[in-house]
Amino acid sequence: MENNRDCIFCKIIEGKIPCNKVYENKDVLAFLDMSPVNRGHVLIVPKKHSETLLDTDEQVLCKIIKATKKISNGVMKAVNANGINIIVNNFKAAGQIVPHMHMHIVPRFSSDGFTYTEPKKKFSESEMQKVAENIRKAL
Amino acid sequence: MENNRDCIFCKIIEGKIPCNKVYENKDVLAFLDMSPVNRGHVLIVPKKHSETLLDTDEQVLCKIIKATKKISNGVMKAVNANGINIIVNNFKAAGQIVPHMHMHIVPRFSSDGFTYTEPKKKFSESEMQKVAENIRKAL
Repeated sequence: MENNRDCIFCKIIEGKIPCNKVYENKDVLAFLDMSPVNRGHVLIVPKKHSETLLDTDEQVLCKIIKATKKISNGVMKAVNANGINIIVNNFKAAGQIVPHMHMHIVPRFSSDGFTYTEPKKKFSESEMQKVAENIRKAL
Repeated sequence: MENNRDCIFCKIIEGKIPCNKVYENKDVLAFLDMSPVNRGHVLIVPKKHSETLLDTDEQVLCKIIKATKKISNGVMKAVNANGINIIVNNFKAAGQIVPHMHMHIVPRFSSDGFTYTEPKKKFSESEMQKVAENIRKAL
């Protein structure tokens, strides 16, 4: 594996820092978040260092999303959750703290009182069409 | 496609309700969220109806995550974003409103002032070990 020696997640992958492992295969490692939002909050990371989802290999992303499905179903059962938020924060402006791509699996409970609700914006239909066109051109 | 006739996203997929499309392939459709958190907020949905990520076919999930990478990179360029949040809310307790699996791509700007920060919880090391064990058993 090509690891980044200053990266805390690479150190966990190499076993130099302990973790509460929940799942592992050739390409991914999943362990409990050390600062959980709720009981059973899991992080899934690619073993090969990449900074964000935007620069992670497609084949590795498939392994991560398959593990996400498997582990989300397991977490639902293990902690009797009522729902699951799956989140990847990419870059500092989006709240990413550790610059090694990680998928959060956050179990949710009907009574946990979180909102995650952000104010919605309103754009005109012509602005929306222009934004969609600009994204299509950038693909 | 096996669609659910009461589902708003199935109606968008069938062209019965208009959308600002940004990308489409055999398995997935991506369009602008009608209630965007920021300019360029995109939803990616599987064309075949499934309720959450937890019951979506693995092969379809791979198509969705590949499209997520492609479109996230496009959105970054198209709206000059500084970051991207990728979010799937599963079940009502996690804030899911439309019961058709959808991946949010939310462009973020250094100046947008969102936090998405939830209070962190602290569990003892023995509790963390027990939770990890329960998840491993549930996989």
